[in-house]
Amino acid sequence: MLQIRTDLAIENREIYQQAYQKEAPGIEVEEEKGENFTITRVKILDDKGSEHLGKPKGVYITIDVPRLKNADQDLKDEVSQQIAKEIKGLGLSDENTKTLIVGLGNWHVTPDALGPKVVDRVLVTRQYFVAYKKEEDETVANVAKISPGVMGITGIETGEIVKGIVEKINPDLIIAVDSLASRRMERVSTTIQISNTGITPGSGIGNNRIGLNEEYLGVPVIAIGVPTVVDAATMVNDTMDLIIGSMKDAAKVGSEFYSILEQISNEDKYQLIREVLEPFMPNVVVTPKEIDLIIDDLSIIIGNGLNMALHHGIDLQDVNRYIR
Amino acid sequence: MLQIRTDLAIENREIYQQAYQKEAPGIEVEEEKGENFTITRVKILDDKGSEHLGKPKGVYITIDVPRLKNADQDLKDEVSQQIAKEIKGLGLSDENTKTLIVGLGNWHVTPDALGPKVVDRVLVTRQYFVAYKKEEDETVANVAKISPGVMGITGIETGEIVKGIVEKINPDLIIAVDSLASRRMERVSTTIQISNTGITPGSGIGNNRIGLNEEYLGVPVIAIGVPTVVDAATMVNDTMDLIIGSMKDAAKVGSEFYSILEQISNEDKYQLIREVLEPFMPNVVVTPKEIDLIIDDLSIIIGNGLNMALHHGIDLQDVNRYIR
Amino acid sequence: MLQIRTDLAIENREIYQQAYQKEAPGIEVEEEKGENFTITRVKILDDKGSEHLGKPKGVYITIDVPRLKNADQDLKDEVSQQIAKEIKGLGLSDENTKTLIVGLGNWHVTPDALGPKVVDRVLVTRQYFVAYKKEEDETVANVAKISPGVMGITGIETGEIVKGIVEKINPDLIIAVDSLASRRMERVSTTIQISNTGITPGSGIGNNRIGLNEEYLGVPVIAIGVPTVVDAATMVNDTMDLIIGSMKDAAKVGSEFYSILEQISNEDKYQLIREVLEPFMPNVVVTPKEIDLIIDDLSIIIGNGLNMALHHGIDLQDVNRYIR
Amino acid sequence: MLQIRTDLAIENREIYQQAYQKEAPGIEVEEEKGENFTITRVKILDDKGSEHLGKPKGVYITIDVPRLKNADQDLKDEVSQQIAKEIKGLGLSDENTKTLIVGLGNWHVTPDALGPKVVDRVLVTRQYFVAYKKEEDETVANVAKISPGVMGITGIETGEIVKGIVEKINPDLIIAVDSLASRRMERVSTTIQISNTGITPGSGIGNNRIGLNEEYLGVPVIAIGVPTVVDAATMVNDTMDLIIGSMKDAAKVGSEFYSILEQISNEDKYQLIREVLEPFMPNVVVTPKEIDLIIDDLSIIIGNGLNMALHHGIDLQDVNRYIR
Repeated sequence: MLQIRTDLAIENREIYQQAYQKEAPGIEVEEEKGENFTITRVKILDDKGSEHLGKPKGVYITIDVPRLKNADQDLKDEVSQQIAKEIKGLGLSDENTKTLIVGLGNWHVTPDALGPKVVDRVLVTRQYFVAYKKEEDETVANVAKISPGVMGITGIETGEIVKGIVEKINPDLIIAVDSLASRRMERVSTTIQISNTGITPGSGIGNNRIGLNEEYLGVPVIAIGVPTVVDAATMVNDTMDLIIGSMKDAAKVGSEFYSILEQISNEDKYQLIREVLEPFMPNVVVTPKEIDLIIDDLSIIIGNGLNMALHHGIDLQDVNRYIR
Repeated sequence: MLQIRTDLAIENREIYQQAYQKEAPGIEVEEEKGENFTITRVKILDDKGSEHLGKPKGVYITIDVPRLKNADQDLKDEVSQQIAKEIKGLGLSDENTKTLIVGLGNWHVTPDALGPKVVDRVLVTRQYFVAYKKEEDETVANVAKISPGVMGITGIETGEIVKGIVEKINPDLIIAVDSLASRRMERVSTTIQISNTGITPGSGIGNNRIGLNEEYLGVPVIAIGVPTVVDAATMVNDTMDLIIGSMKDAAKVGSEFYSILEQISNEDKYQLIREVLEPFMPNVVVTPKEIDLIIDDLSIIIGNGLNMALHHGIDLQDVNRYIR
Repeated sequence: MLQIRTDLAIENREIYQQAYQKEAPGIEVEEEKGENFTITRVKILDDKGSEHLGKPKGVYITIDVPRLKNADQDLKDEVSQQIAKEIKGLGLSDENTKTLIVGLGNWHVTPDALGPKVVDRVLVTRQYFVAYKKEEDETVANVAKISPGVMGITGIETGEIVKGIVEKINPDLIIAVDSLASRRMERVSTTIQISNTGITPGSGIGNNRIGLNEEYLGVPVIAIGVPTVVDAATMVNDTMDLIIGSMKDAAKVGSEFYSILEQISNEDKYQLIREVLEPFMPNVVVTPKEIDLIIDDLSIIIGNGLNMALHHGIDLQDVNRYIR
Repeated sequence: MLQIRTDLAIENREIYQQAYQKEAPGIEVEEEKGENFTITRVKILDDKGSEHLGKPKGVYITIDVPRLKNADQDLKDEVSQQIAKEIKGLGLSDENTKTLIVGLGNWHVTPDALGPKVVDRVLVTRQYFVAYKKEEDETVANVAKISPGVMGITGIETGEIVKGIVEKINPDLIIAVDSLASRRMERVSTTIQISNTGITPGSGIGNNRIGLNEEYLGVPVIAIGVPTVVDAATMVNDTMDLIIGSMKDAAKVGSEFYSILEQISNEDKYQLIREVLEPFMPNVVVTPKEIDLIIDDLSIIIGNGLNMALHHGIDLQDVNRYIR
């Protein structure tokens, strides 16, 4: 089967469903539809579910906002508030939690710059807690942040840098923000994934080999990611499937063309596709032309969500007027 | 027929050839193969050729450098020198030519920022010619430059801005640099097109409605462009054709699968494809994930080429050491 | 007398007052003190006033906001609103005015980047008026904008570029934004000057030789400027005067030290100072270390002011939430 | 005495000499004059020298290049080579040394961005040594790098971040690059200081409280710094001294003015100056208007120097052509 590249649990589930025409065992899925967005919570309950979906056990929340690409400020604010709500809903933090925000990715590569750009928007306060020897505060929580860069920039595994810092400052929680790969172009800039599992080695578009997760770092890790790239071969393959499916719907049942399409989708065509695609698009990963604007918008939306999730005295008006 | 979006004359020719299995009338094509690159010169000789290729009469030179994406400095230098040679070869400039370089595109949109970034690298000298009331100089020519921005930034047609400036400073030649659209992802970052026809209205990825050409501006216009984006629907459609073609080659002649493929490529399938593609990828234009690096590299390569083409006293060593 | 470098009418007035201990003839000055800022309106009424202050006839409004450097959002908003009010108060525009905003200065030089950065924030609308062939709109006015760059970047006088564009699009009003030089460091980032006289040749920190004024461009020009640099020699000289003055106040009348100071301020010391300063700081122009932040803040404050001044349907909430 | 703010050992020595008219005990000074630059090596030999100069024991090398501000490429290359020579001359590294380069300072503040910008230029190789489990290489040494940001960005002491990383990757040597403060504007952009003492707490323009030195980090630390800012009060005070000195030279001995100046420099004037300066320029730190260009130039010059110092197979041609 053609290897489908995705970092979204919701797409792993989709792939399983397409292949086996049923829900994978060991997982639980909850869907909540709002006017402007759909929230899907995929819970991987056991090792079986983990194996079927190719992802660690835990909760994967997807906020899907079809109109996010050209959203007005009200919709953006609504999404920021939902992000804050989902982060708090994971039950890993309260007013006294010491959090380290980690912006993963390469700031020189626009589609990989989401993490560093989100981190730029987060209000850090740890220095005041240290300077005034405080343990708590009326309006803000203890927050530190770092954008460690990628291995091509530093020569060091991102995980090692983060662990080195964690051992010095001992946070209670880590929130890592990263750019992801999706199988579908329409998910780029419309989907936000929040999970309580951290980052698995080799996932994310930067391909770290050490995971940023509780197992390695010793503290819980919330991962927030947005797909910003799509593997071109995956996109072509998926689109061909959609097209063949649609052509079948369009062709009259019983017509010769219909029966050809019927057969083609039953043939073992994937192996062939895979072989012929390779020479034309080896490892081409694409991003929409408007990626600069998408990254700018998303970094504000997620940054605002994080500030509201972490700092109990900060609300929507504050993040839009006072924090930059 | 599915509208194929391309700004490359070489691809318009390809499309004609695929459709009619022959060279379009009214054009002349010359190919020169080097070790590291292929140069194709498509000359549109008359109105017929112009109509068939959908482009104004003139010369369209394409420098194809398959290894440009990961080129070493020697190959980059070779390409810069070839660009200089081709520009000079158009016969529109000499040591005393007053040139205005125009960097088209939007500096806030990475794949559209090639023009402004190339222009940043070009050595401007007009101010010294004016200040010292000189007409000529031993080492440099009279060069001015502008990056006018796009209509979404200025509220003004780019052509109007350029014409306003041309009427004030009266250059002998305009060289416009722009980002282009290709039908094939592999051409992004490996192909450079140089033409003596200027920019046609509606072409380029910024879609200006006034052309930047001799007809409108009153002076010859050389256009230099590099494809940086691909229309996703075009890419999927083209890739499907390649795949179907390859599958046919792979399938055994006489097998049922072969005959299906045979039929599919003979069906009037394009209309169907077009209809079904629309909902999945309406107007999605994509660019490679590494576009920041590609734009940076190309702006140096083309900027160096321009400096050597324009300034008679500047050679390869100068542009790499003294000009930034 | 040591040449004091300043672009502020309020400082030219100060210099005249210090030298002659009286108000210059031919000028009228109005001061309005608010809780958070002082507004001074210097009106140069006739040629005499113009000669004494070294500036063209017209109105020069200075908004002095001592706490602007570390202002909270409320104070910034107050200043934006005051800027909008003063621009409208000049009586050069209404809902149907076609305005061209010009961002002067060099975007590669942080203290000279104010103009381009302000212009980035202004909402342009001219393209819609052109596309829909409208003459008026319920919420927005017809606004175009350009950041032409400086002569070192383009090889072309800024004035020529602007005039070329003016002749193409025929605006009713030009608003030019520029970085200025002050004699006092404390004015950098706390003072905004608005005048109805345009930009005089040779003023502004970019030193254009062609003025951007009604005489040259044929339409009224409002100039908005903020001091971002100080000539180091001027600063040292002025500070020495302040110090000598203060020492005199501090020293006991009748003491030997007092009489020395008395003499020193009566000696013709300026010529000497000028001569000795030259070797130590020839043409050093300085800016505060925090200039990046200052420029960012001011560009939002002034950009918001311009959006509210020009677009009748845009108020404070809109500029902070909807316009970026 | 007016507190003079400087991070240059050479200026601490100067201040001592001015105050006591002799060399401080416990230090040794070596001067080497070249055509284009002067190298001064101040060695602080013992605790006494350390106390008198207010700096830790060690070697402080100053490369003074008066024409560096408008240097041509040849002079820049000469300085890069000299930097490489001096770093090697400290005897702390060879082909097998594992080095961690640390770029100190705030990339959002132009005069404080030197460290991160230099680090951007350094070729990192540690990832290949790790991936291929190599201990040595024919052309490059094992180099990693990090720009940790400042406390206002991360909420974490820079020293803690660096120590955390050092404990993970165990380098043999750290080279920290930072922006410095000088007492004289003419030193900004013309002076480079290299020392084997690391960074003392509270020094550098970012004011860290934890030192980056062997004592804290457990490995030798070379510090490379360039003054990019001057305290305005220090500059005014120093300039006044120069002026008074010059006026004395200019005035005729025996004249009344001469005797006034004679007295003034003997008066206990510093206390007065200090008191009167405070209200006019409290904590104003300035930088030249051209700071963006200065930082860009210096980051290339020092980056090239580091690449040649660290990587034994890299020479001048490589750094200018192959490394960006």
